[in-house]
Amino acid sequence: MRITIIGSGNVATHLAAALKNAGHRIVQVYSRDMQNAALLAYHVKAEAIDGLQDIDPETDLFLIAVKDDAIMSMAQSLAQYQKLTVHTSGATALSVLSSIIPNSGVFYLLQTLSKNKEVDFLNVPLCIEGANEQITCELEQLAHTISNKVYRIDSAQRKILHLAAVFACNFPNYLYEVSRQLLARQNIDFELIRPLILETAQKVQGNLPLDVQTGPAARNDQNTMDMHLQMLQDEPGLKMIYELLSQGIIKNAKGDIERK
Amino acid sequence: MRITIIGSGNVATHLAAALKNAGHRIVQVYSRDMQNAALLAYHVKAEAIDGLQDIDPETDLFLIAVKDDAIMSMAQSLAQYQKLTVHTSGATALSVLSSIIPNSGVFYLLQTLSKNKEVDFLNVPLCIEGANEQITCELEQLAHTISNKVYRIDSAQRKILHLAAVFACNFPNYLYEVSRQLLARQNIDFELIRPLILETAQKVQGNLPLDVQTGPAARNDQNTMDMHLQMLQDEPGLKMIYELLSQGIIKNAKGDIERK
Repeated sequence: MRITIIGSGNVATHLAAALKNAGHRIVQVYSRDMQNAALLAYHVKAEAIDGLQDIDPETDLFLIAVKDDAIMSMAQSLAQYQKLTVHTSGATALSVLSSIIPNSGVFYLLQTLSKNKEVDFLNVPLCIEGANEQITCELEQLAHTISNKVYRIDSAQRKILHLAAVFACNFPNYLYEVSRQLLARQNIDFELIRPLILETAQKVQGNLPLDVQTGPAARNDQNTMDMHLQMLQDEPGLKMIYELLSQGIIKNAKGDIERK
Repeated sequence: MRITIIGSGNVATHLAAALKNAGHRIVQVYSRDMQNAALLAYHVKAEAIDGLQDIDPETDLFLIAVKDDAIMSMAQSLAQYQKLTVHTSGATALSVLSSIIPNSGVFYLLQTLSKNKEVDFLNVPLCIEGANEQITCELEQLAHTISNKVYRIDSAQRKILHLAAVFACNFPNYLYEVSRQLLARQNIDFELIRPLILETAQKVQGNLPLDVQTGPAARNDQNTMDMHLQMLQDEPGLKMIYELLSQGIIKNAKGDIERK
């Protein structure tokens, strides 16, 4: 497929590389910032452009990977070419695109991407939605060229998935950082806690999180929780987080016992 | 070494097995519940006992792995034998033991253990503290027979480590469960989100969490955060968790920019 990449952020970068590796041809990379466009274009042997008037209409797919609030204006600029156009946003409905370009879809990567960390694309879940069955099939085929995990997910489901991903990824990563900061104050190396973080994530690969919950709240160990809250007394924000999450764990544990 | 295991929970079970595998002899397993004692004793070829009067004094180490609030009474019962005695609690100071048994220490596993999941003990950080230098050395040697990651950690540091572990393990696992429940309501398989969970933990093995934070809060994407809060309007607990953790991420991101 001939593919034009609109954007040069994390999603654009990883997706362009994966598609290029799978044998597709990246025609152009567009970014408002020529330096960013050029950097990504160089990696995927494409032409870099920083003006939408330079778009090459000889492409099969416009892949929009820009900030959510810029998707609509991109769609308006690209509509004239009448090519298959997809966005990659978890939080944006297909209708934002399909109301402007009938020949459109969504290509959502359910993964956390950083520019300086490679990712095993074959295991990245790709969530596909097309404005009609033919487009969905076409996007599914494209997705299968780079990943073994391709799912049909409509806009309502994707909205929930995106929210769930915040709880499963962004928030845990923030809590890792809280943990790092607590240790740093006592000159304890974050290295000590890294195996614990990895094992916690590995445990839920084959189990449900509820079944492997550990810690003071899971045991309803009030003494330890009180001691921890005491240790956090100068950090009202962290103290409140500790209380809320512990309450959630206690509530889940109770529900679990009632079910059994 | 001849080792007596006091307790039959997760820590007792994993530690007894690892020590047995490393060539130590498990003399007895004590539990108030004979069935639990017998099950673990069978696995590590030890004698099961459910009464402290049946303790065999011919041992080199009493390893106490019981609930935190039972450690002191166990120490009182074991003091008469004048053997090296350690507890395995993250939240309990060495003094709880050493005030009763001078020949004592702490053997704290910084890992989340579930009975039905094996763990690669060589990578489990073991945090060692002895009542004196000789005991510390002896416990370090013992620790090195089962793990490559042995650290000297005093009671004040261990207290912080234990709190940090709650933030790095127990709370993320709870958030995985929240994510699972959000998906379940829309009949979306938790399987979709598992690779994201694993990648999030893998990313911080070689990076600092602050440097790989992603998501709406990290971008200060107010529209998406407002949409997510709207979706959580019937769940005041989750809504508050979303707000607090997002505020923390935004605050960290600001601090990070100021530093650079």
